[in-house]
Amino acid sequence: MNSSVQHTRILKIGEAANQQDDLLAVEEPLEIRLSYGPLRERQQSSISVTMRTPGHDFELALGFLFSEGIIRNYEEVISIRYCRGENQQEAEENIVRVELSPDTQVDLQKLQRNFYTTSSCGVCGKASIEALDTLCTPLTNDDFSIEEKVIHQAPAKLRKAQLVFHYTGGLHAAGLFDKDGELLLWREDVGRHNALDKLLGASLSANKIPLKGSFLLLSGRVSFELVQKALMGGISMMAAVGAPSSLAVQLAQQYGITLMGFVRNQQFNIYSGSHRVSIKEKMQAPF
Amino acid sequence: MNSSVQHTRILKIGEAANQQDDLLAVEEPLEIRLSYGPLRERQQSSISVTMRTPGHDFELALGFLFSEGIIRNYEEVISIRYCRGENQQEAEENIVRVELSPDTQVDLQKLQRNFYTTSSCGVCGKASIEALDTLCTPLTNDDFSIEEKVIHQAPAKLRKAQLVFHYTGGLHAAGLFDKDGELLLWREDVGRHNALDKLLGASLSANKIPLKGSFLLLSGRVSFELVQKALMGGISMMAAVGAPSSLAVQLAQQYGITLMGFVRNQQFNIYSGSHRVSIKEKMQAPF
Repeated sequence: MNSSVQHTRILKIGEAANQQDDLLAVEEPLEIRLSYGPLRERQQSSISVTMRTPGHDFELALGFLFSEGIIRNYEEVISIRYCRGENQQEAEENIVRVELSPDTQVDLQKLQRNFYTTSSCGVCGKASIEALDTLCTPLTNDDFSIEEKVIHQAPAKLRKAQLVFHYTGGLHAAGLFDKDGELLLWREDVGRHNALDKLLGASLSANKIPLKGSFLLLSGRVSFELVQKALMGGISMMAAVGAPSSLAVQLAQQYGITLMGFVRNQQFNIYSGSHRVSIKEKMQAPF
Repeated sequence: MNSSVQHTRILKIGEAANQQDDLLAVEEPLEIRLSYGPLRERQQSSISVTMRTPGHDFELALGFLFSEGIIRNYEEVISIRYCRGENQQEAEENIVRVELSPDTQVDLQKLQRNFYTTSSCGVCGKASIEALDTLCTPLTNDDFSIEEKVIHQAPAKLRKAQLVFHYTGGLHAAGLFDKDGELLLWREDVGRHNALDKLLGASLSANKIPLKGSFLLLSGRVSFELVQKALMGGISMMAAVGAPSSLAVQLAQQYGITLMGFVRNQQFNIYSGSHRVSIKEKMQAPF
């Protein structure tokens, strides 16, 4: 199997200058190929090449297909495997082929990202949110809630579980926690979208979507696309060590997702849906 | 003009819990439309929709076209402007139209990212690097060099110049420094690729590419694509506050780029091309 880390030789400059061995997070392209359509008219399509860290590749492919709206459940997938070619040893685990059920209706237009556009307002953030209407259901009625301390403790738990980050200092992570703060599932990748897709793919194949009763922690910043992926997974609470963007906050507000940012040093900000966080012995103004 | 920051109301949780005003880094889609081909057979094509922070949009479009290999110099661009529609006030600065000279040969296949693949080894990191052969020239003979202390001082200078980051804590940056450590040019964006594309676009329109005699500092981690963009700009030295990926290091080594990572707290690692860094009064082993 392709490794997630790679040895290298560096010159470390500090008080001294020393040559030493070091580990890098591996970045390699992964191509996802789709096989779909009625039995007598099967179609093959290369739908994506993404730079990723090898490991959990099948989950990445599944999560990508799910979070982009190409598949809706795991039953639509007949098989998923590496495409092994001839004389292509290096590349043999860089292509994943997903066979979909003949009954699955596939609309590859969704991958064109035309959903940033609507006829009413052209290309804009509002259109990007409106275009999700047909794909996603608001999570406003999800009554999951957790105590403040669970949020404070989550980043250290995720960091501790991040094996590749421990060795390389160079990976994003997505982690799923239950209401008591237990880390249920986590995935790492050089790409933050990939880390979340891997987590969603693992959840999909375990029949755990929608992911009710759990909250998502991201190691970096939160963009529109990350909130959109969480929304597809039915996640009603998400937190990040970094900052959210304007459109991430708007999407979270509109779909009833609790969004927290800058979770560090016993502090965090709530941008949306603060009713799901129990804040003990402090001011508890509605928000 | 669309703003780079947006006001929001947050609940800040720490020792107390207070509602307060805060600023978010704006994320909005930008569509790039290209107009090209002979005068009598002009073609229009929507070539990209990217989530970006408004500001320096024309530079972003230029830098994107340049770093993806669609244009080679600024003379190929006849005009660049916003597409203003009717009743689309919100969206009017989210579409940029670039008119290319009728003589410019445009190969939109390059945008398909098929260059991760070669016939010899399929989809793999090696292929991704080999596929750049036709686009890029190695920078091995560039004899630019700088003193170690200039590297140590660069992150604080870039951070100080980052106006939007100062207010939001949520933006990537790319900065260009001269050999004495003076910050020549910098750009910010929610996307790290966009920050670098804006910087390259600004340099292209000022006729400063190849960017000899300067080094690039990135606020985050370094992926293959970021080294590739730097290479297109003729940048022979780059440093980052975060970690590089395996493929970023391989590309830098192969094309003679000096690559440094983890530039923080008076330390950094050199992954490639250490001969360009003058290390005073320390061991200076060849590398």
